[in-house]
Amino acid sequence: MSHQEGLTAYIAAFVAELSKTGVKDVVISPGSRSTPMALVMAEHPDLRIHIQVDERSASFFALGIAKATRKPVALLCTSGTAAANYYPAVIEASISRIPLIVLTADRPHELRDVGAPQAIDQIHLYGKNVKWFVEMAPPEKTEDMIRYARTVCGRAAATAASYPQGPVHLNFPFREPLIPIMDENMFELPERVGGYVEIETGRLSLSDQTFAAISEDIASYKKGIIVCGQLDNSEFANEVIALADILQFPIIADPLSQLRSGEHDGQHIIDAYDAFLRNEDAKEALKPDVIIRFGAMPISKALTIFIKENRTARQFVVDSGAGWREPTMSASEMIYCDEALFCKKIGEAAAPSGNPDYLNKWLTVNELAKEQLSAISQVEDLSEGKLFQQLTEMLPEDSTLFVGNSMPIRDLDSFFLLNKKNIKVMANRGANGIDGIVSTALGVASVSQPCYLVLGDLTFYHDLNGLLASKLYNIDINILLINNNGGGIFSFLPQAKEPKHFEKLFGTPLDLDFSHVVEMYNGKYDLIKDWEQFSETLAKNQEVDGLKVMEIRTTRDSNLKEHRDLWNSVSREITTMLKGDTK
Amino acid sequence: MSHQEGLTAYIAAFVAELSKTGVKDVVISPGSRSTPMALVMAEHPDLRIHIQVDERSASFFALGIAKATRKPVALLCTSGTAAANYYPAVIEASISRIPLIVLTADRPHELRDVGAPQAIDQIHLYGKNVKWFVEMAPPEKTEDMIRYARTVCGRAAATAASYPQGPVHLNFPFREPLIPIMDENMFELPERVGGYVEIETGRLSLSDQTFAAISEDIASYKKGIIVCGQLDNSEFANEVIALADILQFPIIADPLSQLRSGEHDGQHIIDAYDAFLRNEDAKEALKPDVIIRFGAMPISKALTIFIKENRTARQFVVDSGAGWREPTMSASEMIYCDEALFCKKIGEAAAPSGNPDYLNKWLTVNELAKEQLSAISQVEDLSEGKLFQQLTEMLPEDSTLFVGNSMPIRDLDSFFLLNKKNIKVMANRGANGIDGIVSTALGVASVSQPCYLVLGDLTFYHDLNGLLASKLYNIDINILLINNNGGGIFSFLPQAKEPKHFEKLFGTPLDLDFSHVVEMYNGKYDLIKDWEQFSETLAKNQEVDGLKVMEIRTTRDSNLKEHRDLWNSVSREITTMLKGDTK
Repeated sequence: MSHQEGLTAYIAAFVAELSKTGVKDVVISPGSRSTPMALVMAEHPDLRIHIQVDERSASFFALGIAKATRKPVALLCTSGTAAANYYPAVIEASISRIPLIVLTADRPHELRDVGAPQAIDQIHLYGKNVKWFVEMAPPEKTEDMIRYARTVCGRAAATAASYPQGPVHLNFPFREPLIPIMDENMFELPERVGGYVEIETGRLSLSDQTFAAISEDIASYKKGIIVCGQLDNSEFANEVIALADILQFPIIADPLSQLRSGEHDGQHIIDAYDAFLRNEDAKEALKPDVIIRFGAMPISKALTIFIKENRTARQFVVDSGAGWREPTMSASEMIYCDEALFCKKIGEAAAPSGNPDYLNKWLTVNELAKEQLSAISQVEDLSEGKLFQQLTEMLPEDSTLFVGNSMPIRDLDSFFLLNKKNIKVMANRGANGIDGIVSTALGVASVSQPCYLVLGDLTFYHDLNGLLASKLYNIDINILLINNNGGGIFSFLPQAKEPKHFEKLFGTPLDLDFSHVVEMYNGKYDLIKDWEQFSETLAKNQEVDGLKVMEIRTTRDSNLKEHRDLWNSVSREITTMLKGDTK
Repeated sequence: MSHQEGLTAYIAAFVAELSKTGVKDVVISPGSRSTPMALVMAEHPDLRIHIQVDERSASFFALGIAKATRKPVALLCTSGTAAANYYPAVIEASISRIPLIVLTADRPHELRDVGAPQAIDQIHLYGKNVKWFVEMAPPEKTEDMIRYARTVCGRAAATAASYPQGPVHLNFPFREPLIPIMDENMFELPERVGGYVEIETGRLSLSDQTFAAISEDIASYKKGIIVCGQLDNSEFANEVIALADILQFPIIADPLSQLRSGEHDGQHIIDAYDAFLRNEDAKEALKPDVIIRFGAMPISKALTIFIKENRTARQFVVDSGAGWREPTMSASEMIYCDEALFCKKIGEAAAPSGNPDYLNKWLTVNELAKEQLSAISQVEDLSEGKLFQQLTEMLPEDSTLFVGNSMPIRDLDSFFLLNKKNIKVMANRGANGIDGIVSTALGVASVSQPCYLVLGDLTFYHDLNGLLASKLYNIDINILLINNNGGGIFSFLPQAKEPKHFEKLFGTPLDLDFSHVVEMYNGKYDLIKDWEQFSETLAKNQEVDGLKVMEIRTTRDSNLKEHRDLWNSVSREITTMLKGDTK
């Protein structure tokens, strides 16, 4: 048996099984050591191969596809620091629970830690940030080793896809020569053609008695709220709305909860809390005695502080991934159960319990805040806040809106409010990095159209390399670049009061004319001068293919002032109303 | 004692000590959690602060400064994936033995692994790739904690700088509010102003008896060679040349050994081995019975194979860093000793032992190969090989030549031969990545002028973000961009025979017009049409500040043919000569 026969049979078995598990997309970065796996993957009829030279962009692109499809995506790179460039995306995938199958080619054992070229220590390269790490056995064509390659592959895909979803890492030692024997029959597997081992993964559930007890417990409170953070579960939205209706509790809906858009009944949805939970009178009036929380921690710092300030309230945190997404140290019950199932079962057992006055107070305060916030639509200058308000009106139905971290995600929270359009809202909120955003959005756009990305200039700069995918693969994407020439969020932080080093350390103006780089990547670039041109260009670009960048220049100082003014006016009106109430 | 007083005193003590240990350069990426450390560093009068938004580029930039100065450079970033972006540079620093002090800000303990924003697991984030990891104690202003901050800082710098040099990682938990009390006296330390604890690090040496025994051992062989890989030790060049002179051994000098350039006596230097060690007759004629090897493994694969084919020869591998840079599995003695000291001591004890015929054979074959290789200077078309031959003639005295991996480093090896100019040649040869090359070279250029960077288009693309440093800090750099529109090295590998997937998986043409991005970064761009324009532009650009990019377009196919033709002609001539010899 030749080396190449063993190599080919082992890898072909692995790749055939990978496809059988349902993996469709593989993102490959060119390299030498990974040659046999890359060639065999390219030969497989059912795998879509995406080539990306920069492994950091490659890994975020894969993350984007996996986010949009909720199915494992495979990554492949050569040995050395190539694999280390995946680290940020692997960590993001781990925290935000996205299934990735990271495949790294490695030098064989005898060429490790001996100064051989392009050899680093790839064993447990990503530490505890992957759900599973396997140092693969050297390729061999024996019955056991073929069964081994198929079993590990199936197990890796199942591990990545089971709750909480996340990344897994398989490291393959490959010896030279690295060329497989290309043969059209290589994927014909000797037995169990339909997949080697089927893996069924259940969801967490509780007993009916436990559901009944929790339901009774919750129903004993009158002032309840439901808090929904980032969550991507297609059944969840309807179930939680039904539960809120039964309990008569308001739903505090983070923009990533997918509850702010859609045709559902929005009558219990509270969307302007980030503005009004900065007001002491509102916080006093709205004190809950029970909180039911789903998904990741919400974006709003005001909401997090509100939860922390209400530690006497019972707090049920429901997590289908059995994690601990609870930085407020105020949970009283941690419930490891599928969220949609939890809502359904609690709703079935519960009697209406909420106090209509309390619910109405939330709804009234929310309405008042929204009235004040709607003043943003009157702003004539280009404004970061107004941009998101405009998007609720202008985005086409069924679009995906991907939002960068730092300021854009906060403005999304403040200004992208309840609407009837079926808009999917996404962001990288595992580790909240400004890295890899362009690539993640392009990964999403490659499977979900139309796609809009809103991000700041530092975030855009950080992943300019990601734009290449749009050029090479003709991926349509609409990028709304908010350019305030530096780090806008720092103006909101205490260091803004230390002017001595502020611009150098935090403001960090880059003074870049991004039109050049958009041209390099064959994109259409528009510098937006006013709101009329904005809406015209946004509409016109729907007919344009490929990369489209609309740059909206703002200033950090006026942005700060605009936000402060709005929060102050919200706060003033709410205080007036609530003081009036108590008279 | 307020929180801010404790925070300030602790960090100021750390930063004051950092400067006392000799650290001059700190590369900071903007972020919120790292605010107190960034502000205190910016306030220190003796630290040079470099701001870089992309942490991957930041870390390679720091690596470049540390490579050029051989002194520890500090890196600072905020919590989250920012720190993960350092991973490739940390690994490169570890393998290539470059001292870095990585400082990461982290959430405090109570906000870890609980879904708090921008929080990842930073404990042992870089695994075994750092020499030392410390989870710092939370800041406090007690005498013990101030002594602790100073001690850890001194120890970190000493650990990074002691042999083998490498990266260390300190992780700082910071609680809000993150603002220190800015006070001009904050760096006044209560005691031992000149540095808290002085650390003296020795070098490895052997006893005189051991040196004498090794010396006698080596002198008992007649056919000896000295192989010098990448090594950066200012005393080494003269010592190894003196030793070669005593032993009458040839020195096989890798381009990164720093032995190919300089005013030293080059009479034992063999520089064209990569061409002639592909010839079986040469390999037969030049079989050694003893090999003394210094530094990293040489770049040349032909040389590595030659060493592996001569396993009956004694092989002494000398390593001041007590590592195991020996992938050939043919070392007979591993000697942990300072390289310059080893040469000196062995030279003192040794009697001339080499066989002049054997030495002359090396020199004659080398001369013949160089004659054939010099044909490259007659090539009229733009050619990757000729570029390096031209650089030996055209680079100004005392310049630094930084070379990208993949093809350029190999062409450097083949065509950048012995010269009297004092040119420092550098590359990232720890893990041989194509990542971070622009930034590493700019880090070098920020402390060492004039600086020339030669790299391919995929490598340039991979770190385009690095160019921003040149614009923001007016760093002068001459970039020679060899654009063969894809991965040129793969044409030399066996997969080139598999045309079906070759261009897609390995050729990977990007079709980018890089003039746009050079313009965005305020650079001067020239598309080189012929050799005359090349030499004119190279000369003219010496008078131009900032970023200068000269693009040389070549084709991968003609490059492959040119290399093959040259190797064939070298081989043919050598065979003719050696067969003539044996007649």
